[in-house]
Amino acid sequence: MYINAIGHYLPQNIISNDFFTPKNGLTHDWIFSRTGIETRRRVSEDENTNTMAIKAAENALINAPYEIQSVDLIVSGTYTPYDLVVSPAHAVQQHFNIADAQVIGISTACSSFLNSLEIVEGYFATGKAQRALIVVSEQNSAYCNDTDKNSGHLWGDGAGAVLISKNKYVSTEKKIRHVTTRGLAHVGRGVDGVVNRPNDNGIAMPYGKDVFIHACKYMTKAICDIIEKSDKLLSDIDYIIPHQANIRIINHVAKELQFNDNQIITNINRLGNTGCASTVIGMSENMAKFTQDSTIVITVFGGGYSSGAALIQ
Amino acid sequence: MYINAIGHYLPQNIISNDFFTPKNGLTHDWIFSRTGIETRRRVSEDENTNTMAIKAAENALINAPYEIQSVDLIVSGTYTPYDLVVSPAHAVQQHFNIADAQVIGISTACSSFLNSLEIVEGYFATGKAQRALIVVSEQNSAYCNDTDKNSGHLWGDGAGAVLISKNKYVSTEKKIRHVTTRGLAHVGRGVDGVVNRPNDNGIAMPYGKDVFIHACKYMTKAICDIIEKSDKLLSDIDYIIPHQANIRIINHVAKELQFNDNQIITNINRLGNTGCASTVIGMSENMAKFTQDSTIVITVFGGGYSSGAALIQ
Repeated sequence: MYINAIGHYLPQNIISNDFFTPKNGLTHDWIFSRTGIETRRRVSEDENTNTMAIKAAENALINAPYEIQSVDLIVSGTYTPYDLVVSPAHAVQQHFNIADAQVIGISTACSSFLNSLEIVEGYFATGKAQRALIVVSEQNSAYCNDTDKNSGHLWGDGAGAVLISKNKYVSTEKKIRHVTTRGLAHVGRGVDGVVNRPNDNGIAMPYGKDVFIHACKYMTKAICDIIEKSDKLLSDIDYIIPHQANIRIINHVAKELQFNDNQIITNINRLGNTGCASTVIGMSENMAKFTQDSTIVITVFGGGYSSGAALIQ
Repeated sequence: MYINAIGHYLPQNIISNDFFTPKNGLTHDWIFSRTGIETRRRVSEDENTNTMAIKAAENALINAPYEIQSVDLIVSGTYTPYDLVVSPAHAVQQHFNIADAQVIGISTACSSFLNSLEIVEGYFATGKAQRALIVVSEQNSAYCNDTDKNSGHLWGDGAGAVLISKNKYVSTEKKIRHVTTRGLAHVGRGVDGVVNRPNDNGIAMPYGKDVFIHACKYMTKAICDIIEKSDKLLSDIDYIIPHQANIRIINHVAKELQFNDNQIITNINRLGNTGCASTVIGMSENMAKFTQDSTIVITVFGGGYSSGAALIQ
């Protein structure tokens, strides 16, 4: 399956680290040295997870080779829903009046984009869909707690959108060659490392060190696993797009597999942790950098836990 | 694909209609005559969406022909999550220590069971999974408002679990012959007919009449669509398991397609609207009634909107 078009949306409000100092007592230097984050975005009052998904889809459409109304599958990913009944996928269907589509909202936390890709792969395999739109959108600011020293300063808002089909429409379009995902709830503090309980203080990360250790291990392993499934070698990879949770996790993965800085796509310094949108935003921001032959691997780790990777060429 | 085992879980607390009279002013007679609901269940303090999913899975395991640890895909459905990061699917993976599984949490509101079936169908088609566990669980009591005259009295708590594989293990196991789903967010009050906004009063149904009209129309249409995809006639259907939102919707669908009362599986009088768990609980409660040749159709309508049907034999 091919990526026919991609886009992202970032809200305009820029929040610096200094914003948190009077709230959770952490300084810019402390936050930056431990996370790599300098700023993050936040929605304005009339925006939410669903409106950001619509704007990301509008931006993906700018270069789309077909009308969005011809999409027959819409999958959304978010762990910060505005509405638990009306998913971003529903909001997109309604906004663009896409009359004949299967519509699903999912969450595997920061892994949702890769599980969405596998769901699309499945609908393509059964012949139930031919063209899919994936929207990934997080309004972390709706659920995070600015006074929380463990994680209040980590989160950013943002969204991404990808149009995918069985067919290639333009010669430069990239092929998704392999996708792999894995649930890891049975590992470490899987079910309480990171939580987002709407009725109990929202997002919290009571076991940050456990998350860090397992993210390093399983984001590295996911890259190795996807290479094993392909006819490629690690040395064939041109770019890694890792989930953007912490620059130290990203640097650990890069060092472990001997990638250099130019090969690692990051936006965490500007955007913080934008959840399941982070890798799509990373790909969308860097499309001009990738050549026709670039081999790109996305690798993710999500709360709950879960992991996954995709090989794109 | 085959249903290898099924189970459900209902919390013990029984809430009568009289509970609501001092809260939203509605009497037992008013509620019963307009919805068909007499009682509904509610969790105790140490229960939630995830714990109910685990108990439903335990009950499904009683008659399972294989170990739960051999499952390689876990899909959960809920629009009333206890945790937006740790889905019921993650909770089940951790509880049973299922080490090698893909894990996904989804929501298409009351349609989630049928979208879960389609996701399983897709993973089976790509060869990425062989045995799946679907858990559907709703703690509506965590998000509903007892003082709401529009919908406070409708909701119940409960969960269901289904083990599905490509293979038949026991001669009496039922085959899922066809599944169809459709997003309907572009229809009527799709994106605001029913909502569950965690940060804005939880579950509300500001356009109940619109939901009623479209549920009648699309639950009927979903049955006709699934029959059209099969080699069956409407008259071949032995049982309908409709989503349990309102007995008047169910009666409307039955009358429209000329089914008699004995053919319609209901539990709404005892359980209220248990969301995406309602049809799985209905199937699980009535397995002894179905013979080896019974043809069963599940039909659902969900907020957002969405619809779907499954033909099981």
